Amino acid sequence: MTNKSWNVLVTGGAGYIGSHTVLELLEADFEVVVIDNLSNAYKGNDDIKPECLLRVEKLTNRKIIFVQCDVTNLDELQKVFEKYKFHSVIHFAALKAVGESCEKPLEYYKTNVCGTLNLLKVMREFNVKCFIYSSSATVYGIPEKLPLVEDMKTGDCTNPYGKTKYMVEEILKDLCISDKTWSVISLRYFNPVGAHSSGLIGEDPNGIPNNLMPYIAQVSVGKREILYVYGNDYDTPDGTGIRDYIHITDLAMGHVKAMIYQKIRNFTGFKVFNLGTGKGYSVLEVIQAFEKASGQNIPYKIIERRPGDISVSYADASLANKELGWQATKNIDNMCLDTWRWQQNNPNGYKSS
Amino acid sequence: MTNKSWNVLVTGGAGYIGSHTVLELLEADFEVVVIDNLSNAYKGNDDIKPECLLRVEKLTNRKIIFVQCDVTNLDELQKVFEKYKFHSVIHFAALKAVGESCEKPLEYYKTNVCGTLNLLKVMREFNVKCFIYSSSATVYGIPEKLPLVEDMKTGDCTNPYGKTKYMVEEILKDLCISDKTWSVISLRYFNPVGAHSSGLIGEDPNGIPNNLMPYIAQVSVGKREILYVYGNDYDTPDGTGIRDYIHITDLAMGHVKAMIYQKIRNFTGFKVFNLGTGKGYSVLEVIQAFEKASGQNIPYKIIERRPGDISVSYADASLANKELGWQATKNIDNMCLDTWRWQQNNPNGYKSS
Repeated sequence: MTNKSWNVLVTGGAGYIGSHTVLELLEADFEVVVIDNLSNAYKGNDDIKPECLLRVEKLTNRKIIFVQCDVTNLDELQKVFEKYKFHSVIHFAALKAVGESCEKPLEYYKTNVCGTLNLLKVMREFNVKCFIYSSSATVYGIPEKLPLVEDMKTGDCTNPYGKTKYMVEEILKDLCISDKTWSVISLRYFNPVGAHSSGLIGEDPNGIPNNLMPYIAQVSVGKREILYVYGNDYDTPDGTGIRDYIHITDLAMGHVKAMIYQKIRNFTGFKVFNLGTGKGYSVLEVIQAFEKASGQNIPYKIIERRPGDISVSYADASLANKELGWQATKNIDNMCLDTWRWQQNNPNGYKSS
Repeated sequence: MTNKSWNVLVTGGAGYIGSHTVLELLEADFEVVVIDNLSNAYKGNDDIKPECLLRVEKLTNRKIIFVQCDVTNLDELQKVFEKYKFHSVIHFAALKAVGESCEKPLEYYKTNVCGTLNLLKVMREFNVKCFIYSSSATVYGIPEKLPLVEDMKTGDCTNPYGKTKYMVEEILKDLCISDKTWSVISLRYFNPVGAHSSGLIGEDPNGIPNNLMPYIAQVSVGKREILYVYGNDYDTPDGTGIRDYIHITDLAMGHVKAMIYQKIRNFTGFKVFNLGTGKGYSVLEVIQAFEKASGQNIPYKIIERRPGDISVSYADASLANKELGWQATKNIDNMCLDTWRWQQNNPNGYKSS
């Protein structure tokens, strides 16, 4: 069955996960419209499209329709739905920095919760009822046991960012109970890292990276002097925190698989899937893997724990495998190699071009 | 210390709890501006003010400034804050029907969560940082033990309405952590019933009442034939659900006490208080008490449980007593007598006038 006439709206499609997913959607022959407010994307020299989407077009030899639009603006959203017809929506548009969310909680709740409510309202108005939501393993809060399975308790998140993801999942559940025509899949991401294997698109953080891998990458090219490791007194073999890193292309493919599932199975209701590898790596193991992949030395310094960080998190990823036919294909070496390629080719991210 | 120059914005001030609180604020010499979208209030013949506020003016011999305004409309809110200067805000404006919230979750999240976020944003813009929030005992979800104490676990609410109250409390907590200049008090109401002792203002539900007491009252004056009691197989002495009913005037006074606490103590941070009597009554006990107060027979019929209803809920109300110097003064007989007086004088609510 072809995906050619299946039109997908991708919100936040100029972001890290968004752009990689747009690429995989195009490769799978879906038609894509991207909206993004460009609050966290490099605009570049093109008047119309951000640099990352120009590169996706180049890589796929396909055209993307792009509209600069903020999901918190109901009027703007309605205009997009008036102009284009959609079968599905993948919703990435959100604020995503844990630390910043503690400083600016109102902004996070407004963008992430109310932005999603706006989008759902407009979707309902235009009778678009297939929705894929960008959730996070953070909704599990402090894990009761490991690996994390989809039916475990959620909530008790340690920061406003995580709470916004939890709240939206609750809203989506309630929506699907109230109206049986919705098809909603919430994908709980573990720790997305890496870049497209072409080295043309990747993660392009504004300012100091909040996450480990882009920080390592910036140290590897001399953009930052030293890596700070937040705590080595966790209850883990080497004392540093353990996470389930997942290659961005695998993650993007998870969205394609979820969309095909909605499309082919005619699925309605609310389902949740973990997207992870099922394997955890400590901070020190990631540093080692990156050193091996890049041939560079990554100097680091242990400093105190960061409040709100949990010690270990990794997924039981079997449900996505069983139901969506999806599984991660790339290992930690691929993740490091692709990050390194992206970083070398684009030492200043998209601004390098 | 006088309250004369202390200006209070009351959102949803034309509602049941709002109007009674406005009355007590005026009696305590506060200056009051009310906003309300009048989605659930009888407008009456006056072009400017809803009937309930005209009656509050009559009872208090004071003037209320009223602006028709929806908290989900940021521009409208900003205009109110431009025009009037406030020291405190009491935020009642919300959708409140549990059953309806299951049918229309998006509307509930939008009004209750995003409406509150709008209000907080505008308050911050205008540097108004004293906030009293209309929360609910429903945030406790299914009680782990009784009585319910403020520091017990919240969340796991059984319906979207309850979740909105829980989510806003979480937002308020995060806000107070991020900005130490806010003074926020969340008041968790148990089951408000009764009417002002004058019989001039009271609860005026639209259509079929969702709550026990207004339903009984309508049966007592022959407006409805029979009362339906949802289940008599709960684990309680007579099998019917037990709730902590609190007289609306006591509840209103809780807000006045909370505001004085903020004002005099110069309190900053986030605090939560239960507003209840600490005593639970079963549905059958309330019916009996109402029959005694009114001299009317209340025919009733046991039907099946209502999904989401818990069996027993009552407050530990000692914290509000200790910190705010507040306690409930009116018993179940007062509650029934005042409800009966209001209902007799206003068989069709405010429309009777």
